Amino acid sequence: DTPLVIAGKVFSSRLMTGTGKYRCIEEMQKCVNKSGCQIVTVAVRRVQNNVPGHESLAEALDWEKIWMLPNTAGCKTAEEAIRVAFLGREMAKLLGQEDNNFVKLEVIPDSKYLLPDPFGTLEAAEKLVKEGFAVLPYINADPMLAKRLEEVGCATVMPLASPIGSGQGLQTAINLQIIIENAKIPVVVDAGIGSPSEAAQVMEMGSDALLVNSAIALSDNPPAMAYAMNLATVAGRMAYSAGRMPMRSYASASSPLTGTID
Amino acid sequence: DTPLVIAGKVFSSRLMTGTGKYRCIEEMQKCVNKSGCQIVTVAVRRVQNNVPGHESLAEALDWEKIWMLPNTAGCKTAEEAIRVAFLGREMAKLLGQEDNNFVKLEVIPDSKYLLPDPFGTLEAAEKLVKEGFAVLPYINADPMLAKRLEEVGCATVMPLASPIGSGQGLQTAINLQIIIENAKIPVVVDAGIGSPSEAAQVMEMGSDALLVNSAIALSDNPPAMAYAMNLATVAGRMAYSAGRMPMRSYASASSPLTGTID
Amino acid sequence: DTPLVIAGKVFSSRLMTGTGKYRCIEEMQKCVNKSGCQIVTVAVRRVQNNVPGHESLAEALDWEKIWMLPNTAGCKTAEEAIRVAFLGREMAKLLGQEDNNFVKLEVIPDSKYLLPDPFGTLEAAEKLVKEGFAVLPYINADPMLAKRLEEVGCATVMPLASPIGSGQGLQTAINLQIIIENAKIPVVVDAGIGSPSEAAQVMEMGSDALLVNSAIALSDNPPAMAYAMNLATVAGRMAYSAGRMPMRSYASASSPLTGTID
Amino acid sequence: DTPLVIAGKVFSSRLMTGTGKYRCIEEMQKCVNKSGCQIVTVAVRRVQNNVPGHESLAEALDWEKIWMLPNTAGCKTAEEAIRVAFLGREMAKLLGQEDNNFVKLEVIPDSKYLLPDPFGTLEAAEKLVKEGFAVLPYINADPMLAKRLEEVGCATVMPLASPIGSGQGLQTAINLQIIIENAKIPVVVDAGIGSPSEAAQVMEMGSDALLVNSAIALSDNPPAMAYAMNLATVAGRMAYSAGRMPMRSYASASSPLTGTID
Repeated sequence: DTPLVIAGKVFSSRLMTGTGKYRCIEEMQKCVNKSGCQIVTVAVRRVQNNVPGHESLAEALDWEKIWMLPNTAGCKTAEEAIRVAFLGREMAKLLGQEDNNFVKLEVIPDSKYLLPDPFGTLEAAEKLVKEGFAVLPYINADPMLAKRLEEVGCATVMPLASPIGSGQGLQTAINLQIIIENAKIPVVVDAGIGSPSEAAQVMEMGSDALLVNSAIALSDNPPAMAYAMNLATVAGRMAYSAGRMPMRSYASASSPLTGTID
Repeated sequence: DTPLVIAGKVFSSRLMTGTGKYRCIEEMQKCVNKSGCQIVTVAVRRVQNNVPGHESLAEALDWEKIWMLPNTAGCKTAEEAIRVAFLGREMAKLLGQEDNNFVKLEVIPDSKYLLPDPFGTLEAAEKLVKEGFAVLPYINADPMLAKRLEEVGCATVMPLASPIGSGQGLQTAINLQIIIENAKIPVVVDAGIGSPSEAAQVMEMGSDALLVNSAIALSDNPPAMAYAMNLATVAGRMAYSAGRMPMRSYASASSPLTGTID
Repeated sequence: DTPLVIAGKVFSSRLMTGTGKYRCIEEMQKCVNKSGCQIVTVAVRRVQNNVPGHESLAEALDWEKIWMLPNTAGCKTAEEAIRVAFLGREMAKLLGQEDNNFVKLEVIPDSKYLLPDPFGTLEAAEKLVKEGFAVLPYINADPMLAKRLEEVGCATVMPLASPIGSGQGLQTAINLQIIIENAKIPVVVDAGIGSPSEAAQVMEMGSDALLVNSAIALSDNPPAMAYAMNLATVAGRMAYSAGRMPMRSYASASSPLTGTID
Repeated sequence: DTPLVIAGKVFSSRLMTGTGKYRCIEEMQKCVNKSGCQIVTVAVRRVQNNVPGHESLAEALDWEKIWMLPNTAGCKTAEEAIRVAFLGREMAKLLGQEDNNFVKLEVIPDSKYLLPDPFGTLEAAEKLVKEGFAVLPYINADPMLAKRLEEVGCATVMPLASPIGSGQGLQTAINLQIIIENAKIPVVVDAGIGSPSEAAQVMEMGSDALLVNSAIALSDNPPAMAYAMNLATVAGRMAYSAGRMPMRSYASASSPLTGTID
């Protein structure tokens, strides 16, 4: 299998995680470790505001090994998201990642469903690409939007499986399948994955990577769940490469009825 | 997590595999190895008849490490299945497993859908239990049948996810869930699992173990698929123990909208 | 389309209903009427015991138009069910249905999941067939059990879509499809149908009829729901006969892109 | 139930159909009749180009009873769609519908998946609304896009259930549910409905109407399927108004176990 490459940078893990919703920073650290992830997304506005659990992020993770993916959570407009993206770039530099131009772009005007705005997202993406960012936009699973974002130079697209934090699993399969078939950039499934089987499922479909946060942080045993997600992501990708058995409408014996008893 | 215990015997792996449908014996060996399984089911009648790929089974696997699970594939009646169960016990003894009384009981009169007969299965199970066998009956996912088989002393029940070799995944969830809730013996899902995500799914529901054969043997790359199934089984079990996040109908932000930008 | 024929008796409606769970007898009457059904199942033991809503069943429905289907609800063993079947036959005679030998056979030992016992059901079915009953057994969706019941002379099989009163819809599709393909007697889906779309779905698969009770009686507006079930059953059957369009993995324009604009 | 009102015009039927893909014009006429529909969509470009089956559309249907919904199928850009919308308005006038300003807006740049472009659609919608059109835009099931189209003054939104002509049924349920919850204008499900059960399903969710073409035209018996769709749409709407029974994870007896036998 070839490794995951985003904006020229090579990653061996295909599972990304986040820092939100954990009970304490030690638990977050353990989970990042168990997940085997190399990319951790961080809400820039939470860090700027010293939200509990984010005061000591600089020390909390080993930023020589973990690639920071600043995100624009909390931004309702393209303008806000662009400003926060620049803040995120500064933050990455302060942590020693001089060449980190990544931004997970979230433009979410609605606070009930937390669904991304396709118009604000495209607008912000175009501008950020011109400013030299590697843009990873969070989107609903619309293949036409995904293609447009690819055309304006985004580094990946990040379609949702189901609404953020809902844990409802893959509810957008038919659109996601088309996005994967058409994309020339990596497809990273973001939001909605609630269990390892769902993580494996999106990888088996041919997603290049996935991002999981709530499903780990809200488990009764987050580090165990982080490790389970790690294994499931690897398993799903391996199965995609290995090729699935054909489905049959009827049965076919594993132990055919050859031979008789005498 | 506690280990899997069947008829007093302890197993650390929760994935079982088979020996059928492989292109060659070397591939089968690799897959057994990669799957991490400790139990391999063998069709007694195929061995008796020297079906290709089964001539040298004695040498093919390391029977000091792998526990043989003789199965009665190809038997249409309780009588046939009972006879084959005894042959299987002899076979296990010849391989050095003196105390192996296991039998995977299959009573399958129909050759199109290969679905098990509940009446023949119960009849054979009762007799085999009396003869000292540890009986693991293959059944459709009927909770009342599962309970009856438990009552007559079976060591496990092995309900199907979907018809053998169909690779259609978990199509019997509602009945399987009830079987799991009620069982005091291990529930081993057998037949129909086509991909690692499906393997993880049945483990997340609380199945104690699962058996996969076609999905590995018929992949384009069986050893890779065997390893993927291994990881997915572990991931699914681990997630079951860790506890799944609650599902929500609406979204919930991983990175809540605290803070403002000025 | 050919009409529904059960035990030589012809019915133009393919929807059956029941008398349980209604708020009052007037509502039940309205619903039976709106549903267009010709067969109504009645719990013999409720009538025997004058359970509220069942005191005046003789007058409540027009038994010259409605065919009574006595059922053995509340019976835990074959013996009980056989006794209740005979009581039901008497009841039908008292209502003027001299030639009514129908019995909806329910043998349900468990009070939590209310799932039928395949062994008690087969035993009772065999005996009742010999006693001249037209036996309509309620079963889990096990194709081998369905075939055996057909072989012993049952008039139909009545597999469940999901557990009684759960309203979870069609959860047994893969087994139900096989039952339908193999049956030479009518297949009547019983239990679990919660909405008209689910009623239409089982008819589109080729079921010969279906029975709905809770989904009507527990609606906020039972008569409207009864009528909706009536329409949906007709729609589903009609679609089955008309033939469904082929599914495609990709899109195909209803209004193809012929022509250009100049 | 209140009737369907679109742009101030009242319709008693909630099923819309089209004119494409029929074997002959007589079959189309029969199906429009059997479907009970009051709105028929017509591809303006097919009429302009005398595509077979569209030469005599003026005479083919009774335009005093059927409301024409001109559509912009075949348009890849906002500009093309706007031009075709004006042609459609002329066409409606020629048929005697002086006050018909309706247009089903389709902007579909891609010819493989036939998915609508959210950007071109919004652009065209804004301009057409200003020109006095009642705009019914065909969209992927993106709630944020649907809201935006409502805000710019569209008369309805027409989200897809699955790609046009695929007959894959409701694959976008989670997004569709949110669109319905949020919309102040009618939600008309368009594309992907393959069977009456699927038609009923989207109506039960609370859709205000639906449009079906391929599923009728490509059936082996289109008029029968048209009638089945008619019934199913009514059934689904009626069930939505009546209120669905609650779902239960466990069973609940229709005929409770009261009473004993002596």
